Amino acid sequence: MREAFHSDLETIRGNLIEMCTQVETAVRDATTALLDGDLATAERVIAADVHLDELQVDIDEMAVDLLARQSPVATDLRVLVSALRMSSSLERAGDLAEHVALIVRRRHPDPVLPEADRADFERMGELTVAAIHDAAAVIAERDLELAAQVEKRDAEIDDLMQSVYGRLASQGESYSAAQITDLTLLGRFYERMGDHAVSLVRRVGFLVTGSTLDPRSVATDVEVI
Amino acid sequence: MREAFHSDLETIRGNLIEMCTQVETAVRDATTALLDGDLATAERVIAADVHLDELQVDIDEMAVDLLARQSPVATDLRVLVSALRMSSSLERAGDLAEHVALIVRRRHPDPVLPEADRADFERMGELTVAAIHDAAAVIAERDLELAAQVEKRDAEIDDLMQSVYGRLASQGESYSAAQITDLTLLGRFYERMGDHAVSLVRRVGFLVTGSTLDPRSVATDVEVI
Repeated sequence: MREAFHSDLETIRGNLIEMCTQVETAVRDATTALLDGDLATAERVIAADVHLDELQVDIDEMAVDLLARQSPVATDLRVLVSALRMSSSLERAGDLAEHVALIVRRRHPDPVLPEADRADFERMGELTVAAIHDAAAVIAERDLELAAQVEKRDAEIDDLMQSVYGRLASQGESYSAAQITDLTLLGRFYERMGDHAVSLVRRVGFLVTGSTLDPRSVATDVEVI
Repeated sequence: MREAFHSDLETIRGNLIEMCTQVETAVRDATTALLDGDLATAERVIAADVHLDELQVDIDEMAVDLLARQSPVATDLRVLVSALRMSSSLERAGDLAEHVALIVRRRHPDPVLPEADRADFERMGELTVAAIHDAAAVIAERDLELAAQVEKRDAEIDDLMQSVYGRLASQGESYSAAQITDLTLLGRFYERMGDHAVSLVRRVGFLVTGSTLDPRSVATDVEVI
């Protein structure tokens, strides 16, 4: 019974890692679509989001089923509750990658990014991909040193968003209104994806260290602009 | 034992309703601060957010404690899992109200809203306050007709956001870059608060009707612009 239970927990962990992999691909593809104005890649991101939703359903059903059948306590209970939270974070991060792709599709064949903003978004994409990639490793191996790396990448994403917003404010005359709206939302979307990566690794940290599930320690949203 | 358990469930429900009340106040105050450029009210919203965070901690600790001690199954289990999700939604909606107040504080003493956009944001604020107010009643009384009302209000908020975004695109020359950034984010923040109200009532709907916790039925985020 215990062995079957722990095998089920491993399945849930595997599904969470699979969600990370799919989110990583979604962010990478959405960023490529954004940088290259590539409609086919944007469409692929949009179409793929349903798989993330399905994985979330699988994880949640399995977690609730285990809660009902096994009545776990202590660490096992906290692992299951954390899995429910992590699947939400990953589903939401996938939505945000889809939102990036939707902006690319809406503007196509016009490019979304002015030349001056390309480098910042390319870097934000790389950092977000790396943050989600590392989050998967933290979930797999509970390596809290890697978790610190995710926090660092998130802080860099925040700085880049502020850099984009600063350029919009100081050089507004060189942008159209539609560009400012797009860049504002895109900056926000990457910032939030970084936040979700941080939430994931902080939840693993709670499980490892046994500290509370205090949402104040999970919240990472920065003040925008 | 069962009676004590159901009394605990009622306490959780009461705390969720209290969170709704506090979010409702936060949205109302943030909107007043936005319309009047009222710094003191904005500061109050920012300072009050910690109480919402504390309520979420209380609800989550109580829910996890009940899961551990009572090993609930069937409906009781689903009620507890839903409570964990609803407390997240409410905490996040409170953050978004705080974000509105932070924009007011950042621009003070300059007003954030151009005259042309006042009416739309006043109405978005009213609709969001009403949606959260109704969500509280749905949680208290499980009145699914009222839930339909929340969905309708959310759709109206989405339309108003699109109206603001449309005006930014068509009359961009009458806005500064900073105004476009602010209005883009503000529209998004109200849109997301409306989404959270809808998520709340859909979760109650699942409990009443016994249907699944499929996140595809809870997701409400609209494509922006």
